[in-house]
Amino acid sequence: MTRQFAIVDTTLREGEQWANAHFSSADRLTIANLLVQFGVEYIEMTSPCASPQSAADLRSIAALPLGNTKLLTHTRCNLEDVQLAAECGVAGVNILFGTSPYLRQWSHGRSIEAILAEVGPVVRFLQERQIEVRFSCEDSFRTPLPDLLRVYQAVDLLGVQRVGIADTVGIATPRDVERVVGAVRNAVRCDIEFHGHNDGGCAIANAYAALEAGATHIDTTILGIGERNGIAALSGLIARLYLSEPESVAGYALPMLAQLDHTVAAMLGIQVPFNACITSETAFAHKAGLHTKAVLANPSTYEAIDPNAFGRERNVLIGHRLTGRHALQ
Amino acid sequence: MTRQFAIVDTTLREGEQWANAHFSSADRLTIANLLVQFGVEYIEMTSPCASPQSAADLRSIAALPLGNTKLLTHTRCNLEDVQLAAECGVAGVNILFGTSPYLRQWSHGRSIEAILAEVGPVVRFLQERQIEVRFSCEDSFRTPLPDLLRVYQAVDLLGVQRVGIADTVGIATPRDVERVVGAVRNAVRCDIEFHGHNDGGCAIANAYAALEAGATHIDTTILGIGERNGIAALSGLIARLYLSEPESVAGYALPMLAQLDHTVAAMLGIQVPFNACITSETAFAHKAGLHTKAVLANPSTYEAIDPNAFGRERNVLIGHRLTGRHALQ
Ligand SMILES: O=C(O)CCC(=O)C(=O)O
Ligand SMILES: O=C(O)CCC(=O)C(=O)O
Ligand SMILES: [Cu+2]
Ligand SMILES: [Cu+2]
Repeated sequence: MTRQFAIVDTTLREGEQWANAHFSSADRLTIANLLVQFGVEYIEMTSPCASPQSAADLRSIAALPLGNTKLLTHTRCNLEDVQLAAECGVAGVNILFGTSPYLRQWSHGRSIEAILAEVGPVVRFLQERQIEVRFSCEDSFRTPLPDLLRVYQAVDLLGVQRVGIADTVGIATPRDVERVVGAVRNAVRCDIEFHGHNDGGCAIANAYAALEAGATHIDTTILGIGERNGIAALSGLIARLYLSEPESVAGYALPMLAQLDHTVAAMLGIQVPFNACITSETAFAHKAGLHTKAVLANPSTYEAIDPNAFGRERNVLIGHRLTGRHALQ
Repeated sequence: MTRQFAIVDTTLREGEQWANAHFSSADRLTIANLLVQFGVEYIEMTSPCASPQSAADLRSIAALPLGNTKLLTHTRCNLEDVQLAAECGVAGVNILFGTSPYLRQWSHGRSIEAILAEVGPVVRFLQERQIEVRFSCEDSFRTPLPDLLRVYQAVDLLGVQRVGIADTVGIATPRDVERVVGAVRNAVRCDIEFHGHNDGGCAIANAYAALEAGATHIDTTILGIGERNGIAALSGLIARLYLSEPESVAGYALPMLAQLDHTVAAMLGIQVPFNACITSETAFAHKAGLHTKAVLANPSTYEAIDPNAFGRERNVLIGHRLTGRHALQ
């Protein structure tokens, strides 16, 4: 089963919301260029309303030759914000409203009716300018399913390109994701984007479960940076897809993944986590004696991902204490 | 739905197989003591056959007051190895055989029949000494299901305490885990342990899916260290369980989690990954203006895990570029 999907890399929006991320304009340009070369379908950037620098950087990157990559920005759902976004020259705008009781009461104070009343003019404004629109229900997994479906069906009828399902607080399990994405898949005709946080350690599995249930667009960031402990890492999603359907990721510049992770880690002054898929220093290291012996005979014994497909090398550790006896057998 | 489960922490076995892990005897003692205080049900240590030091450390830790925590070691499935294990004073031994065609051909060259013939005497040896026995099919997810069930049913009839399902090369999705664990659950009476690698970024989600499907024991390591890019992190599994059923983890010393992760990271000379659940420096940091504003009104808006339950503090970042406009609303 080969799926059609698109990657929405939001390192330059969600990633900037990671507590220790402070990208310069030059950093943003470097990241955008690397993502274009890697081949993600979309790059999402911080709202131009966040600061004059964010607006300026959005304009510069919109003016670059982006090949097949489309530039999005992520704004609040009001005319002032999307107007500025349109002036910056983006191909699409990702808008959202919190729909959970938590966010309706404590963040913006609006009822579902009031939210729907505000979405219409914003969507029409963008449509008149041939700008792609995506509408998300923020905190989807704490929103009652009837409210969720009601909002998605309403915006689907408005003709948005896609709806977004967001696990804003990172509570969903893969089963939850399958259930909610499946219900939305049956309720709308438009595309479905999924965005999931990692508070419960399931961001990558949830992104994959969303694809299994019919999502078409997945949000990632380089390394997985984002609010709190982040969202699905680009290299993690690629690893998961490669394991299940290598042909589905063959169009991306896979040997660039390590460069992407290391470049952004250097900008942030952090290590690439040892548990990063594909790009971790030790991702292809084999240590236990039973493993090293078998890997030397046939790498597939303990290796489901081919390091060569990602420009990496296998590292068979020989001669430490755990190898001792086994290597002599 | 509150589940009964036990945590098998294998930092001192699987964790030692991480390429850059080189614990001293003092490190091992520190780690074992912290795990006992935290309250894991089992600690698994490297085989005493690996080196004289491993044997000596296993004996020292077996001689400690371990409270309700049981000490296991992980050995090859032969009489010589389990004999030494028994002499070291462990409460249980985890044994295994590779059952996938890859491992049968390239690692040990045995048929399923030959494997079964070797298991019997080893299990009986341990049973005669009242030592718990667990038998795993290594590389379960690349083993044909009929072979898997045949082996598990045979060892179940021998009276082992539990069987182990191992995603040795990290290829399983949560759906795969549910399917295989569910099939084993229907085939055996004994307990079921799950051990899953993180090559596809799904180790924590897979561990949780195993519990949903009827597994009773889950393997973790501190930080998630292990071969290649590791297995399910203890703090990740706890976070996932806390989100779904906080009462199921209330018996552990939750405020110790950060200490566990930071102690082991310091021993290894690495950072606690920014994406670690609960224990990452930024796990409870809120940055975007919409988030900070709402979190100040009610933390639950953007926080599904209560930092206080883990002895941690919320960190609301104010006054940087992403906060600007929103904070003024
Ligand atoms: O707009 C979206 O779909 C996601 C917004 C966001 O970052 C979140 O809800 O976590
Ligand atoms: O004994 C087990 O269940 C697990 C062994 C192991 O580390 C693996 O298969 O990855
Ligand atoms: Cu987000
Ligand atoms: Cu393992």
